[in-house]
Amino acid sequence: MATVPSVSYSITIRLEVPAGGKAVSQLTHAVEHAGGVVTALDVSNAGHEKLRIDVTCAARDADHVQEIVDGLSRVEGVTIHKVSDRTFLMHLGGKIEMNSKVPLRNRDELSMAYTPGVARVSMAIARNPEDARRLTIKRNSVAVVTDGSAVLGLGNIGPAAALPVMEGKAALFKRFAGIDAWPICLDTQDVDEIVRAVQLISPGFGGINLEDISAPRCFEVERRLRELLDIPVFHDDQHGTAICVLAALTNALKVVGKELPHVRIAMAGAGAAGSAVLRLLLAAGAKDVIVCDYRGAIHEGRDDLDDSLRWIAENTNSGNYTGDLRGALEGADVFIGVSAPGILTGEDIARMADDAIVFALANPEPEVSPDEAREYAAVVATGRSDYPNQINNVLAFPGVFRGLLDAQAKEVTEEMLLAAARALASVVTDDELGPNYIIPSVFHPDVAHVVATAVRETARGGLPATDLAEYRTGDRE
Amino acid sequence: MATVPSVSYSITIRLEVPAGGKAVSQLTHAVEHAGGVVTALDVSNAGHEKLRIDVTCAARDADHVQEIVDGLSRVEGVTIHKVSDRTFLMHLGGKIEMNSKVPLRNRDELSMAYTPGVARVSMAIARNPEDARRLTIKRNSVAVVTDGSAVLGLGNIGPAAALPVMEGKAALFKRFAGIDAWPICLDTQDVDEIVRAVQLISPGFGGINLEDISAPRCFEVERRLRELLDIPVFHDDQHGTAICVLAALTNALKVVGKELPHVRIAMAGAGAAGSAVLRLLLAAGAKDVIVCDYRGAIHEGRDDLDDSLRWIAENTNSGNYTGDLRGALEGADVFIGVSAPGILTGEDIARMADDAIVFALANPEPEVSPDEAREYAAVVATGRSDYPNQINNVLAFPGVFRGLLDAQAKEVTEEMLLAAARALASVVTDDELGPNYIIPSVFHPDVAHVVATAVRETARGGLPATDLAEYRTGDRE
Repeated sequence: MATVPSVSYSITIRLEVPAGGKAVSQLTHAVEHAGGVVTALDVSNAGHEKLRIDVTCAARDADHVQEIVDGLSRVEGVTIHKVSDRTFLMHLGGKIEMNSKVPLRNRDELSMAYTPGVARVSMAIARNPEDARRLTIKRNSVAVVTDGSAVLGLGNIGPAAALPVMEGKAALFKRFAGIDAWPICLDTQDVDEIVRAVQLISPGFGGINLEDISAPRCFEVERRLRELLDIPVFHDDQHGTAICVLAALTNALKVVGKELPHVRIAMAGAGAAGSAVLRLLLAAGAKDVIVCDYRGAIHEGRDDLDDSLRWIAENTNSGNYTGDLRGALEGADVFIGVSAPGILTGEDIARMADDAIVFALANPEPEVSPDEAREYAAVVATGRSDYPNQINNVLAFPGVFRGLLDAQAKEVTEEMLLAAARALASVVTDDELGPNYIIPSVFHPDVAHVVATAVRETARGGLPATDLAEYRTGDRE
Repeated sequence: MATVPSVSYSITIRLEVPAGGKAVSQLTHAVEHAGGVVTALDVSNAGHEKLRIDVTCAARDADHVQEIVDGLSRVEGVTIHKVSDRTFLMHLGGKIEMNSKVPLRNRDELSMAYTPGVARVSMAIARNPEDARRLTIKRNSVAVVTDGSAVLGLGNIGPAAALPVMEGKAALFKRFAGIDAWPICLDTQDVDEIVRAVQLISPGFGGINLEDISAPRCFEVERRLRELLDIPVFHDDQHGTAICVLAALTNALKVVGKELPHVRIAMAGAGAAGSAVLRLLLAAGAKDVIVCDYRGAIHEGRDDLDDSLRWIAENTNSGNYTGDLRGALEGADVFIGVSAPGILTGEDIARMADDAIVFALANPEPEVSPDEAREYAAVVATGRSDYPNQINNVLAFPGVFRGLLDAQAKEVTEEMLLAAARALASVVTDDELGPNYIIPSVFHPDVAHVVATAVRETARGGLPATDLAEYRTGDRE
């Protein structure tokens, strides 16, 4: 997948070399010669004759690992003992755990946390169900629900194989917003069953985060759950992406001095992410959008329109353009791709308007090489961490759910999504703003709090706590 | 509920008294005069004029709290500020949380725990589903599932009100066996829906602990789930109770020098717990049992037998006794009650055989006063923590699931339940064994490990790791 070595493919090679001579210095050279990057070299055992060394390095992929190991094995006097994949080591036994927040050291504590004391707490909730948000984990817990049908870019790999991703998501919820999330991997891909299962498990959760459910089923799952449940339902692949794109676009437009209602936008991709991005852009004031899928521009004359595509046809492309993506890009101010790798070249970008904005978000390989795009566009963003302007859902979902839970919200509204996007954009100050910094880093310490505050205040119907002027960016009316 | 003050009804009263004079010494007296028990008296602020004091004391119930507060308010110069219920304070915000086991401090760690690194872990599981037990939380996670239909002794209070109990259960799983359990409170009481919902969420869990689901629905739910799932399904109200009762009875019979195949047993209660206790006793070698419910002895001639009661009628009461519980007790060696409070008196126990064994497990109020029973029976056990020989499921379920998970068991068998009961009984050594110590304390450090080892070895088809001689108690053939 990756074209450069990545720590996500980090290996540790345990080996022995003669204590004297040049062997040690040759190890680093051997890794680098094979195209790897040494990130650590630990001598774990030193004798007079032999040194045991753990060489940790980043590789591109499995074949590359073999090349690196082969290179090391040619160092004189070396003995290779064991090759460990650090990512797999990190996953052994799973990435999350459940902990008790209350001590259970003795009989007294047991009798308060469990029977007989707990009975009074249960009866209080039976009398007043809203007390569940005060006296149980419901106030801070989110179910991360998937059917394993569209996991990352890996496709339909099923619920068990999706579990490591959902555990990672749960870990991010805690890391960035202090939320107690638990993975629920459903052994069905039937819409009715998904909806019913989530409805049945909902009493113990304060929110539902749908994850990696393929389109178009995800639209119906979300719509029906929102009607049925009295807790917010948020499909991160849709709305998390939409919030981040709108926030980044808000700032990118500031950089180039254009305004959302006046720009022409060409989009590639009409799946879960694409349709949600489109809807939020329209809600934020975008007026001139053409959406393309693999068959070209979506227009009312196409004979393959399902409900979702029909909505797109009816609400975009007022000029009834019927050509392909390349044609749609001509003269466009903004390209937003949430589609497939490598479908465009630098030349396609060159035909866009002056000061073009390119968001090539297909992951891990973008719609167009970021390096080529940067030759012609004023602002380029991707989903990758090894280029500037990474558009990453981690910027949105932790803060969104923190705000929803704190407001005890019963639903997610478009106003909340807009508020979250404005808040996220506002984290980048005017001083910081530039072509290579339109969106904050996922580790920016203010992000989750600012987003949470905006969502919470919107949910409560009040004004956002943050200065409103901060939100009034160039493209907002 | 409770007849004596209990820490499960512990309150903290914040008050102010004059710094001089006798007021402080009168506080304790006032609480005790009202029948409360002072467990702590903290001066939280000391001035020349006034002392602010937090008086913590145990009460019987809400009315009793009021009596204590009234008594305190009559102390000269006192000002009552705030009365806090410690059990409710402990429950604020819920009792459990989710934590990440992996660090997410920087980009590198993020790229291993989440995208892009996690993709390789997911693909490994997609290729080899059994790897889920190595690379995810499945190896150590249990769903604590309820429909809220029979919560403690509180009845059908629904899923939200059941949540504090399920959180407590999850906390116990961690405290006693290091297991990551998460509560799943189902918003349905339909058997088909419960079964399907649990089946759908099962991929992310290594075991299912059914909890507080009312009989007879719990039997069908469990039976069908056991057929459908490839992970163990254990209804704690049934099998946890059965394991503890068999373990305690094993040791009680040793105390009185009788053997299980030769004793006459009268049981009260044919619900979830009663029927499971019966089945395990029969599997362990009991031969002469009469089970009574509120209509009297269960026999084949009764016209109200459902499947569960019919099985009982066909496998017990070979003499076809048709009378009531009192009659069944005459000459019986053992009484096991899992039914209703106060249905028997000391006189009923007096009519049992010499060296009678009485397990009065209705909670919180036993079938017969333990004090009265102890006048006539050689060994008395209850479900209460304020008498000797508390039969508490916490002795069984943590170790049972630890063993099941460690063995990667796909089912729970009767052999495992028997092994768990033998192991639990073996924790009480011959030196320790006596009428007031037939079952270890829930805080005994060996319990979970010994039970887990027995279950794990049985699940793997090997011999138990513990010395077999330990298991060969008097009643075992």
